[in-house]
Amino acid sequence: MTETPERLRVPEHMYRALGYLFPRLMFLNARYAPQVHWGDIAAALDGFPTDDLDLASAGFWNLWRERWTDRAESYTALAEASGTVAGRSRALRGAAAAYHWAEFQYFDDRTVKQRLRQRIRDCFLGSLAGTDLQVTEGSLPGTGAGYWVLRTEAMRASGEPLPAVVLSNGLDSATEVEVMALAEAYLERGIAAVLFEGPGQGLRLGRTPVLAEMEPVVAELLEKLRTEPGIAADRLAFAGISFGGYLALRVARELGEHFRCVVNFGGGPAIAKFDGLPRRLKDNFRFAFGAEPGADLQPRFDELAIEPGPAPATEVLSISGALDDIFPIEGLYDLDRAWSDRHSLEVHPREAHTSLNLINSYTLRTADLVTERLADRA
Amino acid sequence: MTETPERLRVPEHMYRALGYLFPRLMFLNARYAPQVHWGDIAAALDGFPTDDLDLASAGFWNLWRERWTDRAESYTALAEASGTVAGRSRALRGAAAAYHWAEFQYFDDRTVKQRLRQRIRDCFLGSLAGTDLQVTEGSLPGTGAGYWVLRTEAMRASGEPLPAVVLSNGLDSATEVEVMALAEAYLERGIAAVLFEGPGQGLRLGRTPVLAEMEPVVAELLEKLRTEPGIAADRLAFAGISFGGYLALRVARELGEHFRCVVNFGGGPAIAKFDGLPRRLKDNFRFAFGAEPGADLQPRFDELAIEPGPAPATEVLSISGALDDIFPIEGLYDLDRAWSDRHSLEVHPREAHTSLNLINSYTLRTADLVTERLADRA
Repeated sequence: MTETPERLRVPEHMYRALGYLFPRLMFLNARYAPQVHWGDIAAALDGFPTDDLDLASAGFWNLWRERWTDRAESYTALAEASGTVAGRSRALRGAAAAYHWAEFQYFDDRTVKQRLRQRIRDCFLGSLAGTDLQVTEGSLPGTGAGYWVLRTEAMRASGEPLPAVVLSNGLDSATEVEVMALAEAYLERGIAAVLFEGPGQGLRLGRTPVLAEMEPVVAELLEKLRTEPGIAADRLAFAGISFGGYLALRVARELGEHFRCVVNFGGGPAIAKFDGLPRRLKDNFRFAFGAEPGADLQPRFDELAIEPGPAPATEVLSISGALDDIFPIEGLYDLDRAWSDRHSLEVHPREAHTSLNLINSYTLRTADLVTERLADRA
Repeated sequence: MTETPERLRVPEHMYRALGYLFPRLMFLNARYAPQVHWGDIAAALDGFPTDDLDLASAGFWNLWRERWTDRAESYTALAEASGTVAGRSRALRGAAAAYHWAEFQYFDDRTVKQRLRQRIRDCFLGSLAGTDLQVTEGSLPGTGAGYWVLRTEAMRASGEPLPAVVLSNGLDSATEVEVMALAEAYLERGIAAVLFEGPGQGLRLGRTPVLAEMEPVVAELLEKLRTEPGIAADRLAFAGISFGGYLALRVARELGEHFRCVVNFGGGPAIAKFDGLPRRLKDNFRFAFGAEPGADLQPRFDELAIEPGPAPATEVLSISGALDDIFPIEGLYDLDRAWSDRHSLEVHPREAHTSLNLINSYTLRTADLVTERLADRA
C-alpha cells in the first residue's frame, strides 16, 4: 500500500508560533508591490520541525530562509517558463516577495543577506515590465543615499509638476515590498512617491549601520527634489513606518517647514528597553546598527530617544497600537501633549506594533488626508 | 485596575476549525477583484464562541454572516467618509469581499442571501469608478442569463476585435470576487473576459435552481458574442472553476468546436456521493439546486454524471487536487483516458478541491497557455 499524501496546510503548530507575523506576511493587497499568496506560506511552513520554534534563535530563521528561498526559486522558474509579459511580471512579483521573507530576520551571513536583498530588487524591477509604473532612480552623493521617484505613465503624461510623498523604510522592511505597498495609495491619488534608502536601509542594510540621525539625508533629498521639474517641491509630505515612523518624527522636528504634513505609522520617540525586546528584535537592531553579536544597545537607544521639544513646524499624525512592544505608546502620549495641536494621535487599543490588522483602513484614511493637505493652493 | 485588552489575532481554535478555508478566503491577489485583508479575518473571527464550531450547522454560518456583515459595513462607512475616488474604490472593494464572505454558506433566508449578493454587486461596480476597467452588460433573453464583457480602456482603444475567455462560476463563488479574480490574468494578456451568470449562478443563486445543463446558455451567449464587433468570435476559450469546471467539461463535449480550448479548474465528471459530502456541502448543493431541506440529491447527482463519450472537438485542460472530496479525481482519470490526446490532466497530490494553495501558479500557467491558443492565426 502506498501512503496517501497529507493535505498541504499551514500547520497548526506553526500558526500558533507565528500567528503574530501573519498580518505582516499578508500586509496590504497591492498592484505593483510584491505580495505572497496563502499557498506560499503553506508551502514554506509545511513540515517545519516542531522542535525548533524558538523565534529568538538564528536556527529558526535560517531554516525559514531556506524554505522561502525555495519558494522564490520556484517563482523565478515560473517566470522563466512563462511566455507572456504578464506571466513573467506576476511570477517575478511572487519571487521578490518570497526573497524578502527569506532574508527577513536572517542575520548570520551578510553576504547571503545582501544577495537575497539584491534579488528582491532585481525581481521587483523585472516585474514592472509591461506595467504603467515608471521608476526614476537618483543618488545623493553627499550622504551616500539613493532614491526612486515613482510615477505612472498617466501622471507623467499630464506634464504638470506633481505633489509627492517621501516614504521611509523601517528597520527590516524592503523598499520594494512594504514601502512600495504603502506608496500605491499615493500613486492612485495622483501623488508621486519618493522612496529613499539612507545608510543602513534597503539594499544598504548590513553594509553600513542604519543612520538614526537621518535628517541630513532627507535635507539632501529635498535639495534634489527642488531641482526636479516633475515635482512640486512646495507640495511634499513625509511618511515612515516602524523605525521609519521614528525617523518621520525626527524629520518633523528638524525639517518640518519643508513638508505640509508628516505621518508616523507605528514609530515613537523612544524604543523599548533593549533588554526586554521580544523575539528576534535584539539581533535585528544589532544587525541594522552594525553592532557586535551580544552587544547591549541600551546606551545607543538612550541617545536616540527624542525629546519632543517645541511643537514642529508642520502637522504630524501618529498611528500607533496600544500594545506596541517596540515603540511603547507612553512616549507618544508625552509627545502628543508637548506638540499639542501640531500632533494628532490615533491609538488602536487591541493592536501591536504598526497596527497591522488595520493597515488597509488607516493607510486609506491617511492617504486621503495627505491628498487634502497636498492640494494645489494656487 | 482596568483590564488590558487582548491583542487582536485570528484565534487558534478558529484557525484549527477553519484552516481548510484560508486559501479560499485569500484566493488570488488581484487588482480589481475584491479581496479581504488578514485583519478583516482577524476581526471577523475574534471572540467567535468556541462551542459552536460545527461547520455543517446553520448556526455557525449564521454567526459568520453577522460578523462579516459587520466588516462589510465598516468598509461602506469608510467609503462614505473617504474624500477621494481611490479611497472609495478601495473601501468598496473591501466591502464587496466582506459581503461575499457574509453570504458564503449561509442558506437560512433567501431574501437575506439575495440582499447580500446584491450588495456585493453594488459595491463592486462602485469600486470600479476611477479604474480603467470597463464593464459592458448584456442579457440572454432565451435562457434568462446575463453576462458582462470586461475590457480595459487600452484594450478598447485598440479598436481591434479581441480574443475572449468565457468564465463560469462554481456553486458558491461570486462573479465579482472569484470569477473576477480569475479574469484578471486574461485582461493583463489583452484577452477580453466574458463573465456569465446562468440560472442559479451569481445574483440568480437561490432564485432559480442552478442549471447543470448549461449548454443552451453558453450556446446563446456564443450567438450574442458573434454579433459583438469588439470580440473575435473565432478566438474564444472557456474556463470554469469547481462546479464551473464541471460545466466546462460539458461545454467541451457539446460545444467544443466553438472554443479553441477549455479549462476545468477543479471540476470533474461526477460529484462525490451526496451522503458523504463534508462540512456544509449538502446544504450548499440543496440551496443551489432548489431542493428542500433534508432532500437527498443522489438521484440528481446520478443524472448529472458525465459519461466521457468520444473525445471532444477542442483541447481540454483539467487541473485537479488528488484529495478533492467534492469532485473525486477518479472520474477525471477515466475521462482523461477516454478523451486521450484532447485532454490534459494536471493532478496535485497534496491539494484538495480546486488546489487553492497553488492557484497563483496554475492560473498563471493556464492563462499563458490560453493566450498561445488564442493568438491570431491570420
